[in-house]
Amino acid sequence: MSTVAGILNDYETIRADQEAFYRDLHAHPELSHEEVRTADEVARRLKAWGFEVHVGVGGTGVVGILRNGDGATVLMRADMDALPIGEATGAAYASTVDAVMHACGHDVHVACLLGAARLLSSHRDAWQGTVVALFQPAEETGDGARGMLDDGLAGIIPKPDVALAQHVLPGAAGTVLTRPGPVLSSADSVRITVHGRGGHGSMPQKTVDPVVLAALIVVRLQTIVAREIAPTEPAVLTVGSIRAGSKSNIIPDEAVLELNLRTYTEQTRRHMLASIERIARGESLASGSPREPEIEVYDSFPLTENDGAVTARVAVAFAEHFGADSLPMELQTASEDFSDVPRALGVPYTYWSIGGTDPDAWAKAVRDGTVFSTIPANHSPLFLPVMQPTLETGTAALVVAAGAWLAPGSE
Amino acid sequence: MSTVAGILNDYETIRADQEAFYRDLHAHPELSHEEVRTADEVARRLKAWGFEVHVGVGGTGVVGILRNGDGATVLMRADMDALPIGEATGAAYASTVDAVMHACGHDVHVACLLGAARLLSSHRDAWQGTVVALFQPAEETGDGARGMLDDGLAGIIPKPDVALAQHVLPGAAGTVLTRPGPVLSSADSVRITVHGRGGHGSMPQKTVDPVVLAALIVVRLQTIVAREIAPTEPAVLTVGSIRAGSKSNIIPDEAVLELNLRTYTEQTRRHMLASIERIARGESLASGSPREPEIEVYDSFPLTENDGAVTARVAVAFAEHFGADSLPMELQTASEDFSDVPRALGVPYTYWSIGGTDPDAWAKAVRDGTVFSTIPANHSPLFLPVMQPTLETGTAALVVAAGAWLAPGSE
Amino acid sequence: MSTVAGILNDYETIRADQEAFYRDLHAHPELSHEEVRTADEVARRLKAWGFEVHVGVGGTGVVGILRNGDGATVLMRADMDALPIGEATGAAYASTVDAVMHACGHDVHVACLLGAARLLSSHRDAWQGTVVALFQPAEETGDGARGMLDDGLAGIIPKPDVALAQHVLPGAAGTVLTRPGPVLSSADSVRITVHGRGGHGSMPQKTVDPVVLAALIVVRLQTIVAREIAPTEPAVLTVGSIRAGSKSNIIPDEAVLELNLRTYTEQTRRHMLASIERIARGESLASGSPREPEIEVYDSFPLTENDGAVTARVAVAFAEHFGADSLPMELQTASEDFSDVPRALGVPYTYWSIGGTDPDAWAKAVRDGTVFSTIPANHSPLFLPVMQPTLETGTAALVVAAGAWLAPGSE
Amino acid sequence: MSTVAGILNDYETIRADQEAFYRDLHAHPELSHEEVRTADEVARRLKAWGFEVHVGVGGTGVVGILRNGDGATVLMRADMDALPIGEATGAAYASTVDAVMHACGHDVHVACLLGAARLLSSHRDAWQGTVVALFQPAEETGDGARGMLDDGLAGIIPKPDVALAQHVLPGAAGTVLTRPGPVLSSADSVRITVHGRGGHGSMPQKTVDPVVLAALIVVRLQTIVAREIAPTEPAVLTVGSIRAGSKSNIIPDEAVLELNLRTYTEQTRRHMLASIERIARGESLASGSPREPEIEVYDSFPLTENDGAVTARVAVAFAEHFGADSLPMELQTASEDFSDVPRALGVPYTYWSIGGTDPDAWAKAVRDGTVFSTIPANHSPLFLPVMQPTLETGTAALVVAAGAWLAPGSE
Repeated sequence: MSTVAGILNDYETIRADQEAFYRDLHAHPELSHEEVRTADEVARRLKAWGFEVHVGVGGTGVVGILRNGDGATVLMRADMDALPIGEATGAAYASTVDAVMHACGHDVHVACLLGAARLLSSHRDAWQGTVVALFQPAEETGDGARGMLDDGLAGIIPKPDVALAQHVLPGAAGTVLTRPGPVLSSADSVRITVHGRGGHGSMPQKTVDPVVLAALIVVRLQTIVAREIAPTEPAVLTVGSIRAGSKSNIIPDEAVLELNLRTYTEQTRRHMLASIERIARGESLASGSPREPEIEVYDSFPLTENDGAVTARVAVAFAEHFGADSLPMELQTASEDFSDVPRALGVPYTYWSIGGTDPDAWAKAVRDGTVFSTIPANHSPLFLPVMQPTLETGTAALVVAAGAWLAPGSE
Repeated sequence: MSTVAGILNDYETIRADQEAFYRDLHAHPELSHEEVRTADEVARRLKAWGFEVHVGVGGTGVVGILRNGDGATVLMRADMDALPIGEATGAAYASTVDAVMHACGHDVHVACLLGAARLLSSHRDAWQGTVVALFQPAEETGDGARGMLDDGLAGIIPKPDVALAQHVLPGAAGTVLTRPGPVLSSADSVRITVHGRGGHGSMPQKTVDPVVLAALIVVRLQTIVAREIAPTEPAVLTVGSIRAGSKSNIIPDEAVLELNLRTYTEQTRRHMLASIERIARGESLASGSPREPEIEVYDSFPLTENDGAVTARVAVAFAEHFGADSLPMELQTASEDFSDVPRALGVPYTYWSIGGTDPDAWAKAVRDGTVFSTIPANHSPLFLPVMQPTLETGTAALVVAAGAWLAPGSE
Repeated sequence: MSTVAGILNDYETIRADQEAFYRDLHAHPELSHEEVRTADEVARRLKAWGFEVHVGVGGTGVVGILRNGDGATVLMRADMDALPIGEATGAAYASTVDAVMHACGHDVHVACLLGAARLLSSHRDAWQGTVVALFQPAEETGDGARGMLDDGLAGIIPKPDVALAQHVLPGAAGTVLTRPGPVLSSADSVRITVHGRGGHGSMPQKTVDPVVLAALIVVRLQTIVAREIAPTEPAVLTVGSIRAGSKSNIIPDEAVLELNLRTYTEQTRRHMLASIERIARGESLASGSPREPEIEVYDSFPLTENDGAVTARVAVAFAEHFGADSLPMELQTASEDFSDVPRALGVPYTYWSIGGTDPDAWAKAVRDGTVFSTIPANHSPLFLPVMQPTLETGTAALVVAAGAWLAPGSE
Repeated sequence: MSTVAGILNDYETIRADQEAFYRDLHAHPELSHEEVRTADEVARRLKAWGFEVHVGVGGTGVVGILRNGDGATVLMRADMDALPIGEATGAAYASTVDAVMHACGHDVHVACLLGAARLLSSHRDAWQGTVVALFQPAEETGDGARGMLDDGLAGIIPKPDVALAQHVLPGAAGTVLTRPGPVLSSADSVRITVHGRGGHGSMPQKTVDPVVLAALIVVRLQTIVAREIAPTEPAVLTVGSIRAGSKSNIIPDEAVLELNLRTYTEQTRRHMLASIERIARGESLASGSPREPEIEVYDSFPLTENDGAVTARVAVAFAEHFGADSLPMELQTASEDFSDVPRALGVPYTYWSIGGTDPDAWAKAVRDGTVFSTIPANHSPLFLPVMQPTLETGTAALVVAAGAWLAPGSE
């Protein structure tokens, strides 16, 4: 009987198919909640490889289950949606859809999870237990995972022992990176509408100026990170948008601010939300505003906080398989909704990253200190992982990590 | 031979016609530069009354000239355009045009100047000299007067000895108000575009945040009026609009501010424009902005500064005719382009106001301190002068003021 | 019988004495509430000239009363105190007292009022009625006039029909300047103490930073003049002092701001005081301050608002006597406590200014636009009125103004 | 031959003496650069125990050298100075000096290093190599370590292989805490003097207001931490002091800010210093300041960045000796000048902390979330480590750590 890791020796048999699938997927990106073609392609393959397949979970979500005797149940997740960005990579397999692009690498995630599913399916002698392959829609809008849960995911799948997910990021292709504890921030958007009393620009004394009020709020919001949060506690508060008035000589009635915050503990998150409200109210009072401000929290993403034991187990497996290419991952200020699923199911999880940059280009950029200026990052119209060894590494990472629970005698 | 003031005893002969004309004009408002119907109605009447008429001056402007022997030349000006405001007065003769309204009272100005022209035409025995009746388009956009000048106004009319204009404002109908020296402010709009370097909201350290920069500029602009202008020198600086970004989690590349300033001397105007530029540059520097801000001045209105001698002469004539209804006018923070014409022609001028509010309502509002809360002002969708005695007063004011130059033996 | 104005022909008989007295007074300045020597010199002379003299009124105040038959009672006031400033004029009669100087010209006021008293005393045939010569201490500290009132002034003097005062200011010596209505601002100082919670500078998250709070209050206070007060209404708000903390790395517990405001109507004054409080409270709330701020108003000076009829009567008398040297006075942003007396007594008043600058130097500075850079103003260590025609003009102004009530047949 | 760790079994023989010495030292605190008595007590003991003793190094510094055959050279450092704080602990052995107190625990450091020196001296059979016991003055003022270096320290001692230091902090007594990499921040103070142009508070238009300028700088400085530093990079910028003006109605000529910053990389430190300068200059420009601001950096403390290998070696030794009482140390925002010595000598170093709080009180405070409100921290007038097991633990920690280099066969 082959070992779980031995499965990977067979990667060459699927390489060409996987690459063709990936190119096709990259060329046909679909926006959040519209992943119809992608889901079809995924479901068809899973069925062909013997998975029990559930489609339309949470809209366009697909779940494949492969039961292979007693043992642990491992959930692996890939997200499927693309972004409303026009591709500018010039790739031969660039997006054929106007202003839609796989600019966040979800096509890599789908291709790798499919590859791992295929290898596990064709080497059932090498492991035992149950594999759940979860293809999630709408990660970019933050509601895809919740959508699958709301649609009854818990009743469809056996309860996992562990949940795994990965993301391709700038970094040398071929490397895998893990981190225990907080790894992705929680994120919340906040809309503040402050009220003045409009009037003619030449008679400010008859008005309450909401432009000045909004500006003072923007200024004061800077004090939250600068003064209220411990220096060793990462936190971000960005005012991404400010809008008030339309003419130079009319003082408007209101101003609207759109904020985004990133935190790594629920305590800090609550503190910052409370401070935002306190500041909006205090400044409105100081302006003599005729009405309390409206404060609305939206587009919330959960904290991704990797389980210590699970991450250690994956890191050990990665170190054995990838050697020096298994690296520590830095804390990211990005956010994800993956953790909604294990959190709802009460399952420990870990989330790692894989590099997607040409290793030589990466090494040069690190050497020259030009990583941020020369390496296109996720959400850039120029973001394009090198196909290999990215696909092989992402496929192997899933098999190796799952193997830490599924290899005979691994419990 | 009747006296000039005696002309006004004949007002009753034109009252009904003038009121009908006014109601029709109010019902058919036309936006700036589109005063075609209005101009036609005006030109037809002027011709009928014996004026030499020039049409299409500066687009839709109309000039009527009535020569009546030796003597002074008096230019009287009315503006013709309406505003993009939907009327809400409920008047029987309310606007029939969607979202267009004579909300600034220019229909009163036109009706009064036509009335004065008619009376002067039919009582040529009572005065001598030349009357120039100038019907100007596009006062609201600030370019109507300049348009007439650019179109050769100076070559069409004899050089005036004096230029006169009036405006209906909240105040007891029946009153006329004069003021020597500055009476309306100059006005300028300024667009400031400041540059940051955009990026993801979770990575502010890789960006230069133009939202924070714009907010700090708004805050600092308050110091110009508060600290740099003498307390006894009226000045206003309003930021009517601020716009930056469209999403909470994307730091945008730039922010745009639209400012409006009002001043009463050219020195203060230049000081404030220089301070605005200094602040925009200093704050951009303090933010580490990658590019100098762009600063564009637009929609400039000139200072209206009444000639001392001319105003005194009109005030004496008003006092004789209107008695206690001739009052001092307060300094206004509004702006006008009327003075462009006399300034270009090198002619002294005065600009007065007439009340348009029901006298009892006005007296009550003054008594109760509720003028600003109960009396609709110009540019309000509820602004509607009482027809009389407003039209009679505005007509008489023009005849009386002109008479100060045209009455036999007045020089 | 000579006319009142005719009295002034006799000025030459007192000129030398007055100048000697002035030089001596200038050389011996006394601080507020310490005007002992000055009061003695004044009282001795008044007695010699037949005045009923009251000394020690409100500390060092002196009141002289000269009754001269039926007629109006005219109160004239001069202030006596000097400033804690070291004289740098280099005058032959410069201050002999270290760091004390008549830098505000009160010595001129005293000398002129004494001169007028002497002339009126020696020409009792030329007028009838009662003269009250009031020499007030402690104008600079704002409490001298109230001190005299509190000490029973109303019971000592007959009720005046009018109260008069004057001040020497930069301007051509020989000129007198009047203004109806508000002429000097009211003034108030405000101390704001805001509370934070101190701590180590490296742990801001455990503190509430009062330095940031105080800075934001300073910034926001600029919006009162810039946005809340009508542009045509003069008003000033200065933060003259800010103090918080003593070490770079200790976040202090509190910060103290000292404000000064100048207004010309009681309504504006109350509005600004309310806005200051609203802002201090709103900003403290926005900072999460552990305690409400303390707000203390101190050093209040009243508004000096000249009576219209009284000022017109004085202006007519000045025009007759001084001709082209009688000028309109500009609104001043300085403050005075003179009006406390007539306000308490229910008496109409006027307050005028006289020029103290060499007329040629003044004309040149006006021509060159260098008034502010070359002419030392009151409170400068270089302030020194030219002795003549300043003393003669100030003396004449008092006699002429008083004469408008005291000349036979003037009522 | 006993093992190094075995030395510690003999601690009981020195306990009473050490405690008596500590009580005496606590009762006789000495300010920075004035540690005369302390140095005498230390030097006398070191000599008695066979050390080669150098006194007066860098003022009051003491160096003891104990050579014990071939082997590594280990430098151990204790700081000796107290703080200008009045003790409020009520301890029987409280400070006998007015307003001076060992409020930072340096007395613990001295007692423990002396204890370790004594034990190592009396058990020379258990180790080999050289021990350098360095008693440093003036840590609180940041110049004690540099003073010893400037006074020739390098020529007095053999070059160490490793340098060790420790600090007592709030935490359960009995615990020792280590951390590789940055452990204490670098610190810099910055004095900014900004220039306005003073004048009377009622005439702001003739001035440049430095109070408003300083306030706007304080406000804008908040954006450095909030926007310019990566969220995962700890950094602090505090404005501990702001001072301008002395009277409410005088606009002063200048304002002075005192800042303190804490950083954990030299790159961040340089970035922040550059940003401070950029902001001070940009805001001065925006205010129209007549002169560039002055910016002075003072009281700089170096970054304390523990060597990875050295810290790992100490942590392993601690784990063996202290078991579960060996814990990871959190990143501190405090600063120290200890690292000046090893940095100058080119020696790797580590700096650890020991707990000084009664373990039960600590456990309760952690449980209740009241650590910050109930446990007095360093620099508090209530700071008082429990004597034991603090002294024993600090003594043992030094012996154990040194033993990692000095135990036979340890290299």
